[in-house]
Formats: sequence, structure tokens, C-alpha cells
Amino acid sequence: MSLVLLAANVSAQSTKKVRDIESAIMTVLNKQVDAWNEGDIEGFMDGYWKSDDMRFVSGNSVSKGWQAAFDRYRKAYDSREKMGVLSFSEIEFTVLSKRSAYVKGRFTLERKEDKPTGLFTLVFRRFDGEWKIVHDHTST
Amino acid sequence: MSLVLLAANVSAQSTKKVRDIESAIMTVLNKQVDAWNEGDIEGFMDGYWKSDDMRFVSGNSVSKGWQAAFDRYRKAYDSREKMGVLSFSEIEFTVLSKRSAYVKGRFTLERKEDKPTGLFTLVFRRFDGEWKIVHDHTST
Repeated sequence: MSLVLLAANVSAQSTKKVRDIESAIMTVLNKQVDAWNEGDIEGFMDGYWKSDDMRFVSGNSVSKGWQAAFDRYRKAYDSREKMGVLSFSEIEFTVLSKRSAYVKGRFTLERKEDKPTGLFTLVFRRFDGEWKIVHDHTST
Repeated sequence: MSLVLLAANVSAQSTKKVRDIESAIMTVLNKQVDAWNEGDIEGFMDGYWKSDDMRFVSGNSVSKGWQAAFDRYRKAYDSREKMGVLSFSEIEFTVLSKRSAYVKGRFTLERKEDKPTGLFTLVFRRFDGEWKIVHDHTST
């Protein structure tokens, strides 16, 4: 095999790995959207790393740890009307390593009275084959 | 060498590597603060990856590319009074790999009339030995 062909092969494998990671992360995001739209905040929270080291930055404040983020969501969205219908758009993936990546995107909540929207940056890490959000920065 | 000692040694080396990365990134952040406080926005921007793929999320909008972020800063901070005195606090580092990390922190501008403050998430990657911000999400 010539060096050029070898390089092309390595590059194709590498591209496939990146696509596989993006696909695995997109699955996590889709599961979150589905859970949210079924009114299942705990299911939505399954996308996050269940650790005290998880950070959720929202505007000018930080929730420290999975539990604090969950409590905050439950309080802010205590009815199906407040939850509305969630969708993600403008998603961009960047794979950093075999076990880490980040995603930029927009969330929108379609609700009866309003349509809140904003941007998020999510840092993902892979733990035992599962991709989890270890850091969320959201702003509107 | 026993397995326990070997493990301890590997762990110590690994801790040292993490500390070295944190220190290299802290140097970038300190240089940014120094440049800002000398009124040198271009020097401040040296901390960012000079690429069209760099993303700067601020509140509900995104600057795409280094140049767009630079232009935005120059427009928003066109006098020393507006720039004020920058400081960073509440900094937390997470090293993701030998070549990637993210940092959460707070910025504060001490100005004559006000004191704007907010939170940032910075994703860093190492290029040819240099750590650069590839993604900034800032909100107030």
C-alpha cells in the first residue's frame, strides 16, 4: 500500500470515528428532547453526568452538581405548560478526543404564551461507553 | 517496584501533567487580563484560536470566527473607560486530554459608573504546544 493510500485509509477511519462519536452524542440529545416533551424531567436529566462535579451555568449563576441542576429544573418547570415543546437547532459538534467533545446549539421552547430561546454549550465525556454532559452553559 | 508503588508513581506523573496543563492555561488567562488592562484588545485576542472555526457565544448570539469576535470587542469597548479593569475569579479547570481542557470562571469589569460581571466557559485546545481558546460562552 502506498503512503498516500495508507494516509487516506487512516483519515477515513478517523473521519468514521468522529462521525460515530457525533452520532452517539446526537442520540443522547434526541433522548433528552423526547423525555422533555413527555414531561419527564428525570429522563431529560439522564443526559447529564450524575456527579457533584457536574456544572450547569445558566446566565449569571451556577448549579453545582447533578442534584442542584435537577432541583432547579423541577422548580422552574413544574407544569407541562411551562415545559412547552422543546427543540434543538443550529447544532455544531467538535470532537476533542476519543472520550471528549463539545456541542454548541440553540434550544427553543414552544409554549402557549411565549417562545423562549437561547444558546447552549455542552461539554461531553465518555464514561464506560456512555456519553454524558459534564458541563452545560446556557444563556438567553 | 511493587504494583502499588508503580500505580502511585503513574498517578503522581499524571497529576503533575494535569497541573502543568492548568498552569499553561492560567498563563494564557493572565496574559489576557494584562493585555486588557493595558487597553490592548489585540493582545487580549491572542488567547483565542485565530480561525474561522472559533466560536464566541455571548448571551443569545454567536460570533463566528476570530475576526468577528475581535470586531465585536473593538466596537463594544472603544475606550479605556468602557474597558475598565478586568479580573477573573471562581476559576475551575477540567483537563479532558493532553490537548484539550475547559475552564469555568467569572469576569468582572471595574468601571467608574458600573461593575459588569458574568460567567464564562472556555474550551481550550493545544496547537503546536500553545493553548488557545477555541470556544467561549459568556453570559451575564
